[in-house]
Amino acid sequence: MGAAFGQKPLGPVLHLYRSQLHPQHRQITYTKPSSKNLEPHFSVESQAFGGSALKKSSSVASTGSKRMIPLGTGRPSPEYYPWIRSLESKQFDTYSEAITKETNPPAANGHHQLALQVSTKHDDGYNLALALNYGHAHVELVHNPSYSNWDTCLTAGTTSALEIAFRIFCNRGDIVLSEKYTYPGTIKAINLVGAQMQAVDLDKAGASAIYLKEILDKWDISRGPKPTVFYTIPCGQNPTDTTQSLKRRQQILEVAEEHVLIIIEDDPYYFLRPGLCSTGADSDISADGVPSYLFLDTFGRVVRLDSTSKILAPGLRAGWVTANASIIEKFLAYQEVSTVAVSEPVQMMLYILLDDNWGHTGFFSWLDFLSQQYRIRRDLMLEACSKYLPQDICTWVPPDYGMFLWLELDWRKHPQFKDGLSCGSLSLNLLEIENNILQLALEDGVQVTKGSLFRCSKKPIEELHFRMTFAAASEQDLTQGVRIFAGSIRKEFTIY
Amino acid sequence: MGAAFGQKPLGPVLHLYRSQLHPQHRQITYTKPSSKNLEPHFSVESQAFGGSALKKSSSVASTGSKRMIPLGTGRPSPEYYPWIRSLESKQFDTYSEAITKETNPPAANGHHQLALQVSTKHDDGYNLALALNYGHAHVELVHNPSYSNWDTCLTAGTTSALEIAFRIFCNRGDIVLSEKYTYPGTIKAINLVGAQMQAVDLDKAGASAIYLKEILDKWDISRGPKPTVFYTIPCGQNPTDTTQSLKRRQQILEVAEEHVLIIIEDDPYYFLRPGLCSTGADSDISADGVPSYLFLDTFGRVVRLDSTSKILAPGLRAGWVTANASIIEKFLAYQEVSTVAVSEPVQMMLYILLDDNWGHTGFFSWLDFLSQQYRIRRDLMLEACSKYLPQDICTWVPPDYGMFLWLELDWRKHPQFKDGLSCGSLSLNLLEIENNILQLALEDGVQVTKGSLFRCSKKPIEELHFRMTFAAASEQDLTQGVRIFAGSIRKEFTIY
Repeated sequence: MGAAFGQKPLGPVLHLYRSQLHPQHRQITYTKPSSKNLEPHFSVESQAFGGSALKKSSSVASTGSKRMIPLGTGRPSPEYYPWIRSLESKQFDTYSEAITKETNPPAANGHHQLALQVSTKHDDGYNLALALNYGHAHVELVHNPSYSNWDTCLTAGTTSALEIAFRIFCNRGDIVLSEKYTYPGTIKAINLVGAQMQAVDLDKAGASAIYLKEILDKWDISRGPKPTVFYTIPCGQNPTDTTQSLKRRQQILEVAEEHVLIIIEDDPYYFLRPGLCSTGADSDISADGVPSYLFLDTFGRVVRLDSTSKILAPGLRAGWVTANASIIEKFLAYQEVSTVAVSEPVQMMLYILLDDNWGHTGFFSWLDFLSQQYRIRRDLMLEACSKYLPQDICTWVPPDYGMFLWLELDWRKHPQFKDGLSCGSLSLNLLEIENNILQLALEDGVQVTKGSLFRCSKKPIEELHFRMTFAAASEQDLTQGVRIFAGSIRKEFTIY
Repeated sequence: MGAAFGQKPLGPVLHLYRSQLHPQHRQITYTKPSSKNLEPHFSVESQAFGGSALKKSSSVASTGSKRMIPLGTGRPSPEYYPWIRSLESKQFDTYSEAITKETNPPAANGHHQLALQVSTKHDDGYNLALALNYGHAHVELVHNPSYSNWDTCLTAGTTSALEIAFRIFCNRGDIVLSEKYTYPGTIKAINLVGAQMQAVDLDKAGASAIYLKEILDKWDISRGPKPTVFYTIPCGQNPTDTTQSLKRRQQILEVAEEHVLIIIEDDPYYFLRPGLCSTGADSDISADGVPSYLFLDTFGRVVRLDSTSKILAPGLRAGWVTANASIIEKFLAYQEVSTVAVSEPVQMMLYILLDDNWGHTGFFSWLDFLSQQYRIRRDLMLEACSKYLPQDICTWVPPDYGMFLWLELDWRKHPQFKDGLSCGSLSLNLLEIENNILQLALEDGVQVTKGSLFRCSKKPIEELHFRMTFAAASEQDLTQGVRIFAGSIRKEFTIY
């Protein structure tokens, strides 16, 4: 247990943790949140929805320390899982043995069983409570929420958590606020539940608090009920790679207090910190990072989503959500009839990695290592951008957080518009140019993502963007990829 | 590849497969199903809902054989997954090496990486298409659907698939038909989407087709729209352990054709075949089992849910759904914004077990082995029931399929009713007696499940049931458990 690599000085994450022990950045209002305050936020669907009687009834028996003969729940005996090692190896410390040895087939069986152990809910050596304990301690270390009745639970990945969040808070016909460009999965989830989106403008310090306030102050209810949810990706925003400054977060929280908003803080890039690039008066992000909404929130109106996808592995389908306990109860109730749990082999992988091997310090050390790696990759991409991209057409802001680079192209330089606007819809013409550039890039062997895919509203936008990432390609391919893509842009803009 | 234990004669599953090559049991109507026919079945929510533009755009690049530099999708490079063995070991045949050796840490890293490989979508050695190919072949072998445009996809477990199914087919206020007692997860999911349930009576051959027809023939639309979905657990029904006879299935399909029903065939116990016990004119189930609704369906109105929970391991959160292709499209669209995929380590475990190690024959052989084991366990429980349960109070039907034993208690023998009905609500009194028995059993160290938890309708039922399972306890505990539980019943009924 404990730190695996204690030699290194504490990285930015631990610095942040220490700075947060003095919560000088928090808002003044210390309203005690309660489930009553939140009641009006719940959708028709989620309002009356609670946990299941069967699970409650079966947990009665498992809470006592007495041995129970299980004739109740229909969960097969572990001896009938083809991966289980044996009934005896219930302890987690035997897992590493289990994966290094082939097992003898159980006597009655005669079947070859694969040497992978699957945990069961009835194991004594490991259970969800232990895993949650790690999660709870992690949230306390990093975000140290200021109100007492917060809670956290595992989710089957952030995409699943987002769908559940929108089902908890949105009715059909509702309108959700969000950064003008955002994660397409969110756009789909909001559309699925029958809600629409209202774009909030962005500047270099993130979503505009002034714009947000204006939308809400002047809300015309003939458009639908006044929004009650602001969805935001505050760090290394996908796709624009902006990170909200502390001041901006405080301003947005003020608007949220005034207009009674739930803030969904979708923060998968929080721990990916390539290091500061940002300059100018707008930025107050220190090398220690910037406090989360969860940290700043005193009311319990923030629903924070964390993900393992960007910091451990994307295929795990595992994340966690932290919020007011009455919101977490809703999440658990929804999960009970949908995802049920993070798959047990993955729970086990996480448990062994985080709790058994790394501990908190080891995890933070891994995150610092990742950030250093992303710094190298980001700087390579920035260097290639400066070297190869046509600078009279392309602009970009070097990112402090995350894994994306958001390229803006000046469409006015395109031959089609050089002598003023051409006929037809500008927006449609821009989509055509965007598509041409993508096709040229794919033909040349580079995959990039069209900016238009991230538009949260269907209103035409007179902008032309591409999103690039420095997370996926090999280091040498990063430079090569940007060089090729620069060529595709030049071709479309007929610059040689 | 191929069978691992070819010595054994073909088990019942393969016999069934062979008998199904001659589809003499199918209905006559061979209506070609199309998505147009199904359109009226889709809910308001699901009707307009399709796939995501981002995924489609990123798949453009991955379909070609040309090497692409990935600056598009934000999926981190596998060298940053702490479990990955190395970038070189993309082939699946190296997995067994990967789990038996500790790996050397990558040069740039210096971090201890756990020796577990996580598959990525970009691996050449393994991908979802291969896994689906196995699934498709399995469905073809076992159910051999009679119409051409059926499809199958993985689900993150049947609980998740059920929630999606009810969202696809139900609007708030709808009424879903189901066996009178059913899986509580289904009851919760149906309540979540704002629908209600209409109980269909059961007899020894399963849900009553006559009763089903009568409900639909005489539907009073002041209660709500006429039901369009019949949810059924046709084999080893949870909790009543009945298995629908072939004749009954054909009758129900006739009603479904007449009244344009979707049939949700939730069949997790299909492969658990302890062997025939049933007697009497009602049963036409042969030793080879009974054809599934998916096999019998010629229109494409059956949505079949399969699960790994009861036949491999419950914590995997993995199953598969088979239906008309236009319904599978909806499932995929829903999964894209919720579960996304079965977690990749689990996909890998399944792939290695089913495709690399077992093949189809090996899988069937495992299922036969399980059925033999369940036969032993069932027979032990039946023997204990005959020996210990007070037979003037308790009755049960020995199950042909599944893992449950459904006990009916004659409440008229309870001291409270011996001299006729006591005052107060009978139904409430029965719930109290049920609860007393459960508490006595728990105090004595046996966990059983109250029958009332499975009631799909809130209407009072003048019956008293308990569900027991022979799947979970050890063989010696089975006998012991029944003996103790018999004592708890005697105590409550004051029989000594």
